[in-house]
Amino acid sequence: MDHAIDSRRRRLMLSSAFAATGLGPLSTAAFAQAAKAKPLPKYAEWKYIDSLIVHSSNTIETRRAAFGSSVVVPTDILFVRNNIPPPEESIAYDPDAWEITVQGVGKPGKMTVGQLKRLGVETVAMVLQCSGNGRGFFAHKASGTQWTVGAAGCVLWSGVPLAAVVKAMGGVAGGMQFVTGSGGERIPDGIDRRQVAVERSVPLKAMETALLAWELNGEPLPLAHGGPLRLVIPGYYGVNNVKYLSRLSFTEKETDANIQSSGYRIRDIGKKGAPGQPTMWEMNVKSWINHPAGDGPMLPGMVQINGVAFAGVNAVRRVEVSTDGGKTWTDARFIGPDLGRYAWRQFVLPVQLRTGSHVLVSRATDAAGNVQPAERTENERGYGHNGWRDHAVKLTVA
Amino acid sequence: MDHAIDSRRRRLMLSSAFAATGLGPLSTAAFAQAAKAKPLPKYAEWKYIDSLIVHSSNTIETRRAAFGSSVVVPTDILFVRNNIPPPEESIAYDPDAWEITVQGVGKPGKMTVGQLKRLGVETVAMVLQCSGNGRGFFAHKASGTQWTVGAAGCVLWSGVPLAAVVKAMGGVAGGMQFVTGSGGERIPDGIDRRQVAVERSVPLKAMETALLAWELNGEPLPLAHGGPLRLVIPGYYGVNNVKYLSRLSFTEKETDANIQSSGYRIRDIGKKGAPGQPTMWEMNVKSWINHPAGDGPMLPGMVQINGVAFAGVNAVRRVEVSTDGGKTWTDARFIGPDLGRYAWRQFVLPVQLRTGSHVLVSRATDAAGNVQPAERTENERGYGHNGWRDHAVKLTVA
Repeated sequence: MDHAIDSRRRRLMLSSAFAATGLGPLSTAAFAQAAKAKPLPKYAEWKYIDSLIVHSSNTIETRRAAFGSSVVVPTDILFVRNNIPPPEESIAYDPDAWEITVQGVGKPGKMTVGQLKRLGVETVAMVLQCSGNGRGFFAHKASGTQWTVGAAGCVLWSGVPLAAVVKAMGGVAGGMQFVTGSGGERIPDGIDRRQVAVERSVPLKAMETALLAWELNGEPLPLAHGGPLRLVIPGYYGVNNVKYLSRLSFTEKETDANIQSSGYRIRDIGKKGAPGQPTMWEMNVKSWINHPAGDGPMLPGMVQINGVAFAGVNAVRRVEVSTDGGKTWTDARFIGPDLGRYAWRQFVLPVQLRTGSHVLVSRATDAAGNVQPAERTENERGYGHNGWRDHAVKLTVA
Repeated sequence: MDHAIDSRRRRLMLSSAFAATGLGPLSTAAFAQAAKAKPLPKYAEWKYIDSLIVHSSNTIETRRAAFGSSVVVPTDILFVRNNIPPPEESIAYDPDAWEITVQGVGKPGKMTVGQLKRLGVETVAMVLQCSGNGRGFFAHKASGTQWTVGAAGCVLWSGVPLAAVVKAMGGVAGGMQFVTGSGGERIPDGIDRRQVAVERSVPLKAMETALLAWELNGEPLPLAHGGPLRLVIPGYYGVNNVKYLSRLSFTEKETDANIQSSGYRIRDIGKKGAPGQPTMWEMNVKSWINHPAGDGPMLPGMVQINGVAFAGVNAVRRVEVSTDGGKTWTDARFIGPDLGRYAWRQFVLPVQLRTGSHVLVSRATDAAGNVQPAERTENERGYGHNGWRDHAVKLTVA
């Protein structure tokens, strides 16, 4: 496992000089890459840049080699994806004062985070993953950020169960079919709210497992990840986990915001998005190898092949690993604590690698019997890629 | 729950100006405390100072109110305790090159971290706790850092199982009874190594669960926590988890280093430490409440009383909470994922608090039936304090 980038980061944190050179183990290629990296945006400048790929001020990816084997991805290397710029930092100064509007319940009204904290507290481990994670592997140059594997991370959320909030507010009103969350981003005057608002609807059943979260990985939820309050829908793609939650509605229909009606819809290449097409709700079964990451030649001998596997709302049950590009497979072993059905599992397979080229791939199976497919499902926007072939690590042993 | 200090921290990280005042929710008392705080030592200056109490350059405590409810304590607010100053930072520049000597096995020799990584990988969640956590509650002014509750944290370690290393090196030599780890701190010429060396022995059975860890909470193990390599003994007090591990020996007897022979021994007040007295190995059953933290008056009404409970090598099975100083008790509920027997569990009890003064306490029971006692066990150095009475939160509801 190549943790060189991260150990260098620790040093850089200490020396406060990113320009330091020559002493560390960072490969020439990795260093050149780091040196030409875009800077972190101000709202996320506390993150560790050398474990990240800054695609833009709103899209920041975790480097494959930076994923550890300790199950939880620390917040300082967790990916960031904002659909529109985040609100001003000042909303995070007094998180308990943040107020949400709740509609579509017996007693609609407003509730501050401070009040929500008195209603209940629960913690859930889950994989947060952007719908477009893996888009960079599509051949048709799908529009959007060219993520490879790093728009995902298993994290811990703490907050109040949505069901407890609903109970306190008189229950869900009759006939409602969806939970609709609205983000608190500021939309400038003159811009059509429907065109840009981050507002997503998920099926009502998600209410049973959803949280309104104010804490991420043991610390107050930072603005970069949706603080002061985020709607968390375990097992669903990232976009449904609405940041800076300002309104929570139980609705008869899905919102007509573009991000729901035409965005995040699976359709053939060349087609436009439209209601009725599958939308990015529950995540599919997926795995990939993080170590070795294939970012440099290795010496022959025993290697611990290590990666992650998860399956949306289903627990992952099995991972197989191949070192010959998928011709033959061997069951890998899960390691570390099981954080529950929405979390990912770390897997490991010890293998003897001889001199030569190897193509390492992994294939997960979930509790419902779904098996990760070999190929991606071609689609216009490059969503939901879980094909194992494109996620291969190509390794030279010399 | 008062997360104000932490949300302020996020802001401070963004503004890069600790001197900023007036806008945040930090209480006057807390701000005054933060303003007069000692600075972080250079090897740990990447930590979040306003979630910490810096007792000295070698002893840094997590503030009670800074503990979240997400089970794992993030590295940037995790306590630090060094017996002697850490080695130079340069040892962390190329962690894979760090070398340990292994003795008392069939084939003694040296092994680099890079080689260890090829032998196996496992992850364990465990509570890391200083033997002196709670020393500040002793009435006799026990010598040493006056920790209250924050010299502890539940963390995730990744590394190679010690058993796999031993297997690769020919097994434990005959007659050996202890696992002895030696720290890599530099001891100046002219100083008796036995007097100051961090070298601890634990019973051989600990080998079955021990790790040699290079990763903490998903990132390369930083120097501040023992990187490049730390001996991790799940369920044992912090001191046994030797940092910057330089030598690992299987031995017939416990080391004669002072830290083992006379240090970390439980004895009556006024007595000197000596072999034969109980030493700080397995941790006892313990719990405490973190929220509300009692650092300011609260409004009456429903409150979620939240804290942590653990039990060394035994899983914790039950936590009771009292709001009247221990006269009456109610079972609390565990929340969040169960990370295994060595981890702590987060517990919560919703209670209606009326106007007035309240004394909140918690009492844990482990899987072996051990119950957290009301009173501390008096001892010279203030070790192993798990009495629930001293850990009370005194709360004013107005």
